[in-house]
Amino acid sequence: MAPVATSATAPAIERIDWAMNGVNIEIPSWGFVNTGTRFRVFPQQGVPRSVFEKIDDAATVNRYTGIAGSVSLHIPWDLVEDWKGFAAYVHEKGLVIGGINSNTFQDLDYKLGSVCHPDAAVRAKAVAAIVGCCEIAAATDAQAVKVWLGDGTNYPGQDDLRGRHRRLVASLQEAYAALPAHARLYLEYKLYEPALYATDVQDWGQSLNVVRQLGDRAGVCVDTGHHAMGVNIEQIVALLLAEGRLAAFDLNDKKYGDDDLMVGSIDPYQLFRIVHELVNAMRDDADPVAQACANGTTYMLDQCHNIEPKVPAMIRSVMNLQETIAKALLVDRERLLAAQQAGDVLEANGCLWDAFNTDVRPLLAQLRVARGLPADPYRAYLASGEEDAKYAARVGGTAASW
Amino acid sequence: MAPVATSATAPAIERIDWAMNGVNIEIPSWGFVNTGTRFRVFPQQGVPRSVFEKIDDAATVNRYTGIAGSVSLHIPWDLVEDWKGFAAYVHEKGLVIGGINSNTFQDLDYKLGSVCHPDAAVRAKAVAAIVGCCEIAAATDAQAVKVWLGDGTNYPGQDDLRGRHRRLVASLQEAYAALPAHARLYLEYKLYEPALYATDVQDWGQSLNVVRQLGDRAGVCVDTGHHAMGVNIEQIVALLLAEGRLAAFDLNDKKYGDDDLMVGSIDPYQLFRIVHELVNAMRDDADPVAQACANGTTYMLDQCHNIEPKVPAMIRSVMNLQETIAKALLVDRERLLAAQQAGDVLEANGCLWDAFNTDVRPLLAQLRVARGLPADPYRAYLASGEEDAKYAARVGGTAASW
Amino acid sequence: MAPVATSATAPAIERIDWAMNGVNIEIPSWGFVNTGTRFRVFPQQGVPRSVFEKIDDAATVNRYTGIAGSVSLHIPWDLVEDWKGFAAYVHEKGLVIGGINSNTFQDLDYKLGSVCHPDAAVRAKAVAAIVGCCEIAAATDAQAVKVWLGDGTNYPGQDDLRGRHRRLVASLQEAYAALPAHARLYLEYKLYEPALYATDVQDWGQSLNVVRQLGDRAGVCVDTGHHAMGVNIEQIVALLLAEGRLAAFDLNDKKYGDDDLMVGSIDPYQLFRIVHELVNAMRDDADPVAQACANGTTYMLDQCHNIEPKVPAMIRSVMNLQETIAKALLVDRERLLAAQQAGDVLEANGCLWDAFNTDVRPLLAQLRVARGLPADPYRAYLASGEEDAKYAARVGGTAASW
Amino acid sequence: MAPVATSATAPAIERIDWAMNGVNIEIPSWGFVNTGTRFRVFPQQGVPRSVFEKIDDAATVNRYTGIAGSVSLHIPWDLVEDWKGFAAYVHEKGLVIGGINSNTFQDLDYKLGSVCHPDAAVRAKAVAAIVGCCEIAAATDAQAVKVWLGDGTNYPGQDDLRGRHRRLVASLQEAYAALPAHARLYLEYKLYEPALYATDVQDWGQSLNVVRQLGDRAGVCVDTGHHAMGVNIEQIVALLLAEGRLAAFDLNDKKYGDDDLMVGSIDPYQLFRIVHELVNAMRDDADPVAQACANGTTYMLDQCHNIEPKVPAMIRSVMNLQETIAKALLVDRERLLAAQQAGDVLEANGCLWDAFNTDVRPLLAQLRVARGLPADPYRAYLASGEEDAKYAARVGGTAASW
Repeated sequence: MAPVATSATAPAIERIDWAMNGVNIEIPSWGFVNTGTRFRVFPQQGVPRSVFEKIDDAATVNRYTGIAGSVSLHIPWDLVEDWKGFAAYVHEKGLVIGGINSNTFQDLDYKLGSVCHPDAAVRAKAVAAIVGCCEIAAATDAQAVKVWLGDGTNYPGQDDLRGRHRRLVASLQEAYAALPAHARLYLEYKLYEPALYATDVQDWGQSLNVVRQLGDRAGVCVDTGHHAMGVNIEQIVALLLAEGRLAAFDLNDKKYGDDDLMVGSIDPYQLFRIVHELVNAMRDDADPVAQACANGTTYMLDQCHNIEPKVPAMIRSVMNLQETIAKALLVDRERLLAAQQAGDVLEANGCLWDAFNTDVRPLLAQLRVARGLPADPYRAYLASGEEDAKYAARVGGTAASW
Repeated sequence: MAPVATSATAPAIERIDWAMNGVNIEIPSWGFVNTGTRFRVFPQQGVPRSVFEKIDDAATVNRYTGIAGSVSLHIPWDLVEDWKGFAAYVHEKGLVIGGINSNTFQDLDYKLGSVCHPDAAVRAKAVAAIVGCCEIAAATDAQAVKVWLGDGTNYPGQDDLRGRHRRLVASLQEAYAALPAHARLYLEYKLYEPALYATDVQDWGQSLNVVRQLGDRAGVCVDTGHHAMGVNIEQIVALLLAEGRLAAFDLNDKKYGDDDLMVGSIDPYQLFRIVHELVNAMRDDADPVAQACANGTTYMLDQCHNIEPKVPAMIRSVMNLQETIAKALLVDRERLLAAQQAGDVLEANGCLWDAFNTDVRPLLAQLRVARGLPADPYRAYLASGEEDAKYAARVGGTAASW
Repeated sequence: MAPVATSATAPAIERIDWAMNGVNIEIPSWGFVNTGTRFRVFPQQGVPRSVFEKIDDAATVNRYTGIAGSVSLHIPWDLVEDWKGFAAYVHEKGLVIGGINSNTFQDLDYKLGSVCHPDAAVRAKAVAAIVGCCEIAAATDAQAVKVWLGDGTNYPGQDDLRGRHRRLVASLQEAYAALPAHARLYLEYKLYEPALYATDVQDWGQSLNVVRQLGDRAGVCVDTGHHAMGVNIEQIVALLLAEGRLAAFDLNDKKYGDDDLMVGSIDPYQLFRIVHELVNAMRDDADPVAQACANGTTYMLDQCHNIEPKVPAMIRSVMNLQETIAKALLVDRERLLAAQQAGDVLEANGCLWDAFNTDVRPLLAQLRVARGLPADPYRAYLASGEEDAKYAARVGGTAASW
Repeated sequence: MAPVATSATAPAIERIDWAMNGVNIEIPSWGFVNTGTRFRVFPQQGVPRSVFEKIDDAATVNRYTGIAGSVSLHIPWDLVEDWKGFAAYVHEKGLVIGGINSNTFQDLDYKLGSVCHPDAAVRAKAVAAIVGCCEIAAATDAQAVKVWLGDGTNYPGQDDLRGRHRRLVASLQEAYAALPAHARLYLEYKLYEPALYATDVQDWGQSLNVVRQLGDRAGVCVDTGHHAMGVNIEQIVALLLAEGRLAAFDLNDKKYGDDDLMVGSIDPYQLFRIVHELVNAMRDDADPVAQACANGTTYMLDQCHNIEPKVPAMIRSVMNLQETIAKALLVDRERLLAAQQAGDVLEANGCLWDAFNTDVRPLLAQLRVARGLPADPYRAYLASGEEDAKYAARVGGTAASW
C-alpha cells in the first residue's frame, strides 16, 4: 500500500481516495462456510462445497466492492492437489493469495497442544504442518504464513507454563527457517478459547516477545476480537507500529468474547481509532519505521456470519471498513498535532470526533461510480439476483464448515 | 434438605456432618458425553452411547461419593419411549430424577430464537417443547423443569428488545400453566452465547423479573459461569434468598466466558462465599423466607470435561463441592454476627478466612468411612479398574455428544 | 417531554426537531467544580466558589445550547439558607430545578454505610438526610429526589448481605414516605466504588427490586458508567421501559471503571443504541406503559472534567447528546419493524447503521439558528471571551470541589 | 533470597521453612497513612505524622511477623534532610531500605503527563524527579528505584500515542543513566487510573518492551491489581521469569479496579498460583535465568486500608502471604512434572489443589515460636495494647495521607 499524503486543505474526495484506490482488503476463504457456536451450527443455503467455490465467493465480494482483491487460505481446509493450477484459478478471478493460515488445533493429536505439547512427536507434527504452509506459500507466491495457535491449558498446573513457552519458541524457530524469502510470518495472539485457563500466545506482549526471537520477517497479527475487556487496542497498534512489528489484522467486532461479528457492527468508533493509528503512521515522515510498517500492514476480515447471509454480510463488512478508513483519512493531522502539542484536550479530541461524524457514504459512492462500480455494492448485489442463483446452483454436495 | 443448626462449640466433625449426610448433588446426564469448543470436540474413550449408560455413569459417581443421588435429564437428548420403565431404571441405580431440562436452541427453527422468536409458529413450537418437559416431569415425578434459553440477537436492531421481552413472558406463562403441581420451574439466565449481542434472559434481574410474572413455583437458576466479569455472585445469591426466589444452581467454574470447568477449580474462595450465603440462610431463624428457600435449593454440576476423563472429573468435582460445603459449615455464625454488628471489619472477614483455610479433607474421609464409602473416592475409583473396564465395554456405537 | 411521531417520509429536519425543541437536558451543579482521581485533583481556573456561580455556569451552557434548561442540586454541597430566594435565582437564569441529590457517603459516620449501616443511629441519620432532600424538593418544587448510595462492604464477611438488604428497603421506605406528592424518587445503582467488594444497590435488578417495594413514584436511575464490562445497557433500558420503571439517566462515558468522561466520547454507538430505545418507546403506541415512561425520563449529564475546561466540555457534551438524539430520531421505525418481523438481520441492523452514519450537524445548526442560537455553540462560546472573563472574575475565594 | 531445594519427602515443616526463614517482605511507608477513594478519605486514629512514625509502624509489623524486614519509601512524601541519619534510624529499627518510589503524578505540572508530556520542560522536571530518587538510593544504599507513572490520556486523540512512547523511552533512558551501580530500576505497569483512556505503560508487554531498551538492571514490577479482567497473572509471571525480567511485585487483591485490598482477601488461589510460579522457578535448575530471577524478586505489599485499622491489617496481610508461600512450597514438584509430561490433567491439577488445601497455619505457628515470635502475630498484636497506645501517643499533628 502506498503512503497517504494528501493535504488537509484538499477536497474531501481527494483525501479519501486511498480508501477506494489504495487499500486492499483480504477475504478469508472460510468466511463463506457454515459456522456457529458450540451449541449449534445453523447451515445456510448456497454455502461453498469446495475451495474453488470459496474463491468464487471472494471474487464476488471483490467484483462489487473493488477493494477486496486478496484471499486468505486455511490449511488443511483448503488443500488442493495442484497448487499452480489453483493459483491460476485465483488470479483468473482477479484475486491474489495473501496469507496461508496453519491449523494445528483440530487434529486429534492436538488435544493438549501442538507446538507447545509436552510430547516431542506432537510438536514435530505441528512444526511440519506449519512448514507445509511455508511450502504452499512458496508454491503459490502467497505473501505470508499466518500462525494462530489453539495451544494452552484448561486447568492450573496442567502443564508447566515456562516449559510450554520454551517449546513454543523452539518450535516456531524451526518453522520460521522454512519460510520462503519473499514471505512474512504473522503470529496471532488470543486471550482464550479453545484454551480456557492459559493460552500460550495470549496477548500482544507475548506475540511481540516471540516474534523478536524469530527474525525480521516475523510480525504480530492483531485480531480485534482477541483481547481482555477494556484493553486499548489502538494503543497496541500504535506501539507495534513504533516497534516496526505490526504485520496484519484479523478484523471483526465483538461485545463479549471472540464473537467474530461484522467489523464495526458493535463499536465503530474503536475501529475508527485503530485505523486512525495506521493512517497517522502512514503520514508520519518523522517515524520511518512506523511508516513502513503501516504501509505494509495486511487487513483481513475474520468473521463468522452465523445467522446472516454470508456474501451480503461480507460486502457490508468491506463497506463498513472502507467507510471507516475514509473517515480516518479525513482527520486533519496538522490541526491535530498542533492541538496535542498545545495540550488542548478538547480541540485534539475534536479532530477525531469531526472526522468520525462526517458522512462519507456519498463521497465513496462517487468514487465507486468513477471506478465503474455500483454506488452501493450491498444493494446492487441484493438486486442482482446472484444470491438466489447461487442457492439454486449449489444444491447437493457437502457444504464446507469449520 | 434439612436445616443446619449445629452449634459452633460442637466438634468440627459434627458441624460438617450435613456435607456428608444432608446435601444431595445433582449430576447432569450430559456431563459424561463428548463436549468441546466451537473449534473442536475431542472424543474420549468410554463415552455413553445411550441415556441408560449416562445413568450408569451418574450412578458410579454416587456409588463412590454417596452424595450425588439426583440426576438431571436433557430433552430431546435423553428422550426414551417408556418413561415409567426409565424411571424404574434410575431408581434401581439408586438415583432420583431432579430436573428436566428443555432444549429450544438446537432445532433449525430456533436460529433467531425460540419463545422470543418474531414468528408465532416458532414460539408455539418452543412452548410445546417446554410443555413436553412438564409432561415428562409428571410422568417421572421429576422435581423440576429447567428452562435455559439461547434466545437473543447478534446485531443491534436485529429485533425489538421490548417485543422479545413481551413474547418471552407470554410464552413462559403458557408453559408454566402445564407445570405439574408438585414441580417447580427454574429459569436460568446467561450473559451471552449463543446470542452475541443481547440475550433475552441475560441476568438475575431479568430472571427475577420474569419469574415474578409466572407464579410462586417459578424461581431463578444461578449458573456460576453466566455472569459478566466482576459481578458479585454471592450477593445475587443472598438477594434471591431474601426474595425467596433462589431455586437452583448450575455449578462450574470459569476464568473467561462460560468455560464450564470443574467447580472450584479456578476460584475456590468464590465458591466458598456462595455456599456460605446458603448455609448462613439455613441457620437464619429470623428470616424464614430465606431459610426455606436455602433448604430447598438444588445443586447441580453443569460442566464440560473437554480434555479430562469424565467420570473421574465428576467425582473430583463432587468432592470439591463437598469440601467447600464443609468449610462453609465451619463458619462460626455467632462470632461472625457479633463482629459484623460491631463493625469489626478484620474480625468479621477473619471468620470466613478461618473456615476457608481449614483442611476438611481428613474429617470428610472419616465421615465417608463411617458411611461405608471409600475415604478418597477419586483415588478409589482410579484404583478400581472400572474406568478401563468401561472403555473396553463401550466400544462401537455412537458416542453421545451435545 | 412530548411524544415523537413524525413520519419517516418527512424531511430529516422535521424528524429531528425534537432534538432541538423537545428534549430538556439536566446539568448537575457539581459538573463545574474541581474533580479528579484519588491520586490528585488538578484545580482549574474559574471554578465556581458558590452554588450561585454553579447556577451561572449551568445557565451559560443553556444560553449557548438552548436545550439544557434544568439543573440538578447536590445536598449538602449546595445548601443555601433561603430556598425560595434561591429558586427565584434559578428561574431568573432561565432554568428549572430538576433533581435534589442526596449525599450519604461523605460524613464520617458513613464509613461503613448509611441506610444499610449495622448501627440504627447511623441509618436514622442517613434517612434524615434523604428526608431533608425531600423537604428541599418541596420547598423548591424540584421534580425529583435522587438517591445514590455509596453503601457496601470492602471485604467478604464484613457485614451480612441479606441484613444490609433488609435495612436498605426499610430505610428507603421511611424516606419515601416524605417524598412530596409531585415528586419522584430515583434510585441509582453502581457496580463498585466506593465499596470494593459488594455494593448494596449494585445493578438494575436490585434497583428495580427495591423501587417495587417503595411505591409508584419510585424509579430506576441508569448511570451509563456503572455497569460491569460487557453488560448490554440498552437492553436494561428497554426492560425498564417495559416495566414502566425507567426514571432517569446519569449520562457520561467510560472505558474502564466509573470514568465519568464526556458522554459519547468513548462509545458513541452505544449511546445511540440507548437513545434509540427511548425514541422507539416514545413512538410505540402499542405499549403505553413504555411510551409514558420514555416521555417522562430525565436526561442528566454526570461527568467529571478532570483535565479539560469545564464549561466548554459541558457544551460539547450537550451537543454530543443532541447529535445522538437527532440520529436516533432518524431511524426509520416502519422499515425497522418490517425487517425485524421478517427476520432480515442485515436489513434491520442496517436501519440503525444508516441513521447513525448520517451527519446531523448541518441540520442541527439550521435548527439552532432558527431558534436564535449560535450554529456551533462550542465555537461560539470559545470565541465569546466569556471563559477568560470568568477566569478574571473568579479570583480568590474557595473553589468548589467534591 | 536463597534458593529452595528441600525434597518432597522431607517433613512438611522443613519444606515450608523458607516461608519463615528465607523470604523477606517489603512494607511500604505509605501503607500506614490515610487513604480512600475519590469520594472520601476516612481518617483513622494513630496514623503516622512523619516518615519516622511510618518506619516505626513498619518495624512493628516486622517485630510481630519476623519476615517483613524491608521498607519502601515514596518521594517526595518521605523526603528528609539527612538521609544518612534516616538510614541509621531505619537500621536501628531492624529494617533495610528496599525501593525508592518516584512520584511524578501529583505536581500541578503533571496534569497531562510527566515523562511523556508534550512539553520538554515538564519531561525534564519528571526525569529530574526520578534522578533524585536514584541519588537517594545511592545515599541510603536502597536496593532499587521504582517507577510507576500516572502518564496517559483521558480522551481519544488527546495526544499522539507513538509520540508519547518515544518520549517515554527517551526520558527513562536518561533517568536510568543515573541509577547507582548496585541498584535496579523497576518499571510498573497499570491498565488505567489516573489516566482513563490510554495509559502509557499499560501492561506487562509494554513494560518489558521498555525495560529492554533501558539496560540489564531494569526489570518489570507486577502489581497484582493492575490488569484487565480475566488476564492470567501467573502466566505473565512465568513469562517474565523466562525472560529474566521479573523484578518486583506490588501485592494486593482486587475485585474490580485497582482496589488495593489486602493480599489474598478476594482470590487466594490466584495468589497461590502466582507464588507457585516463583517457587517453581527457584527449584528449576534447568532454567538458570528464571531461577536467578525468582531468587532476586522483591515482594512488596501495596495496599490501602481504607476502612480497617492499618497495622493489624498489614500484619494479617503478611500472614496471608506467608501462608500462601508455605502452601506453594508444599507443591510436590516431581509428581507435578511427571503428571504434566504424561498429559494427566487431573493429576497435575491435583498437585496444586492438594498443596493449596493444606492448612499450614499450625506449622507456621511452630516455626514462629521456634524463632521467638508469637504463634499468631495478629492476635498477639491486638492483645498487646500497642494499637491503643499508639492512638494515645499520636494525637495532634497532621496525619500523613496520599
